[in-house]
Amino acid sequence: MIEQDEILAGIHAVTEALIAKRRHIIEIYYGGGKIVSPRITKTLEMAYEQGIAILEVPVSQLEKIAQTSLHQMIAARVSTYPFFSNNTVDLLDIAARQNTSPFILFLDGIQDVHNLGAILRTALCMGVDGVVIPKDRAATATPAVSRISAGALEHIRLVEVTNLAREINAVKEKGVWITGLLISGTMEIANGNYTVPTGIVMGSEEKGIRSLVQRQCDFLCNIPQIKELNSMNVSVATAMILYEVMRQRRYVIY
Amino acid sequence: MIEQDEILAGIHAVTEALIAKRRHIIEIYYGGGKIVSPRITKTLEMAYEQGIAILEVPVSQLEKIAQTSLHQMIAARVSTYPFFSNNTVDLLDIAARQNTSPFILFLDGIQDVHNLGAILRTALCMGVDGVVIPKDRAATATPAVSRISAGALEHIRLVEVTNLAREINAVKEKGVWITGLLISGTMEIANGNYTVPTGIVMGSEEKGIRSLVQRQCDFLCNIPQIKELNSMNVSVATAMILYEVMRQRRYVIY
Repeated sequence: MIEQDEILAGIHAVTEALIAKRRHIIEIYYGGGKIVSPRITKTLEMAYEQGIAILEVPVSQLEKIAQTSLHQMIAARVSTYPFFSNNTVDLLDIAARQNTSPFILFLDGIQDVHNLGAILRTALCMGVDGVVIPKDRAATATPAVSRISAGALEHIRLVEVTNLAREINAVKEKGVWITGLLISGTMEIANGNYTVPTGIVMGSEEKGIRSLVQRQCDFLCNIPQIKELNSMNVSVATAMILYEVMRQRRYVIY
Repeated sequence: MIEQDEILAGIHAVTEALIAKRRHIIEIYYGGGKIVSPRITKTLEMAYEQGIAILEVPVSQLEKIAQTSLHQMIAARVSTYPFFSNNTVDLLDIAARQNTSPFILFLDGIQDVHNLGAILRTALCMGVDGVVIPKDRAATATPAVSRISAGALEHIRLVEVTNLAREINAVKEKGVWITGLLISGTMEIANGNYTVPTGIVMGSEEKGIRSLVQRQCDFLCNIPQIKELNSMNVSVATAMILYEVMRQRRYVIY
C-alpha cells in the first residue's frame, strides 16, 4: 500500500517514468475503444515487462483519471516525486564521481509550470548535474510539469530547499562560482568562464532574482539583445546560458 | 473604412502595435469597472496622443471582443498584419543598409502558435533581419501570435512565401550560407561560421526540415546534447542557434 500517490499523464511522462525507474508505478491506464498507437503499445510492453498492472479504460474515464485532456491516451498512478535531496551540496558528488566540473542551476522562484517544464527539459539535455528550486512560492515537481518537460522531470536531479540564498552560499564555500542572469547585469554572458565549477541563477518571471539572492552571486550577467523588446522569456534566456556553459566546456580550453 | 480588420489582445501586443506604427489602429478597448493599472494608463495615453478612439467597456464585453480571456484588460481593433514582403531577397536590403551581414531565419512549417510566438520574440531580440514562413500548413501572423510573442510580431520583418525551398535558393544565389538544424545533422552548431551572410532553417515540431528544403542547406547541424531525451523543443533549439550567431558576430573575429 502506497501512502501517497499521484497521476502522471501523457506518453513522455509515463514512458520516462518507466525508463528512469525512480518512482513506484502502481498501475497504468490507457484509452480503449480506439486503435492503440505504436508508441502507446511500446510503452505498455515496457510496463508489462516490469510487472505493472495495465488497465484499459474508456477515454472519458481516462480524462477523469488524468485530470487533464492532454493525456495522449495514457496515464499512470505513481508514487510522489522523488526529490534528489534537500541539500544542494549533495549535487557536488555527481561531478566528483563523473570527474567533471560541477554545473548546477538555481531557479529563484519560477511561477509558471510551462516555464519550469521547459527549463527542466533543456537543463537535462545540456547536462546540468541538478536543478535547485525553493520549497515555497514557486512552481514545483507536479505531474503537469512532468508532462510539459516531456518526461525530463523523471530523470533530472531536483533539489528542493527552504532557503535558496543559504544553499548558494554553501556551494560557494565548496568552490562553485555563481553567475546570476539579470537584465541589469554588468557583464555579458559570453565573457564569463564556465569551465570552472559553475552555478547559474535564474530569477522569476516578474521579479527576476531577489536582492538577497543577487548578493550571493559572484557575477551578474546579461544577454546582449540586439533589439530591445521587454526581456526575453525566462526559459529562452535559460536555454542560452546553459548552451553557453555546454559550449565552453566542449570547445574552449582555458 | 478599413476592409479587413482583426482584434489584438493583451498589453504587449497593443502597446507594441502603437509603438511600431505599422498597423492602422481603429479603436482601443479597455476593461472598465476596476482600477486601471499604470501600464494600461500609459498605453491609453499613447493611443490618445495618436488620436485613436478609446472605448471603456465592461470586462465581460472585452472578453467577447478580444475572443480570449487573456486580454489583460486591453484590446485593439487593427488592420490585418503587414507582412514585410513575399520575397525573401527583399530582406537582403536590410543588412546592406545597416552595413551588416545578412541574418535570416527560415521556419519550415512551425505548427504551434506558442512556438511561433516564442521564436519571433527571440528572433527580434537576437537581431535577425527577418523571418520567412510558408503560406500553407504552418502557423502564421495571427493576433494570438502577436500576444504570445509579447508584441514582437508588431516589429519583426515577416516574409510569407509560397515555396520555401525556392526562396532559400534565391538568397543562396545572392551569397547567403544556409544552415539547417537537424537531430541527425553532421556538424555541431558551434563549429559553423555565422559571421558570413547567414540563413538558419528550423523544421516543424513533428517532421523537422522537409527533405526538399534540406537539399537547399549548405550545412546540416545539430546541437550536442549531453543527455539524450527525445529532442529539445523547437523554440529552445532556435534560441540556442540564434544566440550562437549573435555571439560569433559580437565576439569572434574570423
